[in-house]
Amino acid sequence: MTAFDDAIAVSPAGPDTFSARTHPAFGNFVGPFGGITAATIVHAIQADERSIGRPAALTLNFTGPLADGDYEIDVQPARTNNSNQHWTISVDQAGENRMTGTALFVRDRPSWASLEAQMPQVKGPHEYPVVSGHFPLRWIENYEMRFVEGPFVASAEEAGPDSTTTKWFRQLPARGWDYPGLAAAADVFGPRIFQRLGPVPAGTVTLTAYFHADAQALAAQGEFLLGTVRGLQFADGLADQHAQLWGEDGSLVATTTQLCYYKAAPQE
Amino acid sequence: MTAFDDAIAVSPAGPDTFSARTHPAFGNFVGPFGGITAATIVHAIQADERSIGRPAALTLNFTGPLADGDYEIDVQPARTNNSNQHWTISVDQAGENRMTGTALFVRDRPSWASLEAQMPQVKGPHEYPVVSGHFPLRWIENYEMRFVEGPFVASAEEAGPDSTTTKWFRQLPARGWDYPGLAAAADVFGPRIFQRLGPVPAGTVTLTAYFHADAQALAAQGEFLLGTVRGLQFADGLADQHAQLWGEDGSLVATTTQLCYYKAAPQE
Repeated sequence: MTAFDDAIAVSPAGPDTFSARTHPAFGNFVGPFGGITAATIVHAIQADERSIGRPAALTLNFTGPLADGDYEIDVQPARTNNSNQHWTISVDQAGENRMTGTALFVRDRPSWASLEAQMPQVKGPHEYPVVSGHFPLRWIENYEMRFVEGPFVASAEEAGPDSTTTKWFRQLPARGWDYPGLAAAADVFGPRIFQRLGPVPAGTVTLTAYFHADAQALAAQGEFLLGTVRGLQFADGLADQHAQLWGEDGSLVATTTQLCYYKAAPQE
Repeated sequence: MTAFDDAIAVSPAGPDTFSARTHPAFGNFVGPFGGITAATIVHAIQADERSIGRPAALTLNFTGPLADGDYEIDVQPARTNNSNQHWTISVDQAGENRMTGTALFVRDRPSWASLEAQMPQVKGPHEYPVVSGHFPLRWIENYEMRFVEGPFVASAEEAGPDSTTTKWFRQLPARGWDYPGLAAAADVFGPRIFQRLGPVPAGTVTLTAYFHADAQALAAQGEFLLGTVRGLQFADGLADQHAQLWGEDGSLVATTTQLCYYKAAPQE
């Protein structure tokens, strides 16, 4: 059992409810890393005896900050068809809503297939140095990161005009990729405003992830995933970012998009 | 009043509920064009006296087919902060859930801003011919479409290896762009599998749209939007597609992503 597996543990607390608890190893600026909460929610649905198949899509809205401590995950199957199951999600803490969301679970069925996207042309993970040092955020220590481009920006002086980050990363300590792991990986990029301005107040408001790897493809993954992300527009204190996660075998494992808030005064 | 405005009309039917009705001018393969339902939902939240600001994000899951006729939209503000309001959405018809979803509404606040994405380098809308002829789907007649690349594919013989479509389009008859109009526009691209295989059974399962144009930017839009979309992976009967909508003035108006189901036998 890794810290990750401890952190995503849930226990039934009612007909549609699981109780969970934040884990200090996944601390962020305020409360936990959003990715670990996403992972815990996926894990809760998987643990629900009504669930079928595997997650294919997940949208989570961070309606209010989750504080360290206990919280409740309410999951309900809104509709189950032959191959699709739609879930609604609500996370509450101290009687207040902290997250809303929806998930799509699917039974895989063989079909015509085509990978149209191109994996970024980069070298293997071991060709890039491991980022080391002291991280101000605990959750980062759960990943080994090797940046291809767009490393952490620690100050406004290091910021630049392009918000792209491309990096290899793997889970620490090693654990196989599963859907909770992939849900967390969908949030493994910081807000893109950091690349443009350096550290400013920022965080995810809404996140959507599509899991392209079916159960068989996911089980075949190596330790490393290649992630690439870019923001398209920053305005009115909101910025989008769009990411792809690739396997070492060249398969597209997930695509994700999110909207982050940020605080930065208008240009003069 | 255009057919669009008729189609998105809602009337209060309870504390969190609006009643709506499908419109024959927006017919699709089965039931209505998903975009018009998205527009009606945005309109319902705007009509709710509790709503603040303007839509910034919308996720809708098509849990079951909406039939022609009356349906109910249930919208609830899950949490309202100073500048953000999170809504949950449920669409029901004949006592069965047909859609789930969430929306983010925001109050615009000036901030540091940057448009990092590049608008596709294309000529103006009038440089491309209007698509005309008889359309099998009624909803298409509500838009004038001028294709830059990736036009409608009517048969397997016309299909190709690239799912990209780029087109200028405007509303018919003319009406200014508003958020319901933009929500519909987010679904104005057919499933990308059509570009790859020609007509096969397919449809949207889940859709996420981010509205980047604030109220001021939206009001400044001309009639035409430029849309560009591409699918990244087709597998297990599911395919993602990712789109950008641009204004004639070069502003990024919206980004959208969706997951479509399709039916097509595996390659030999």
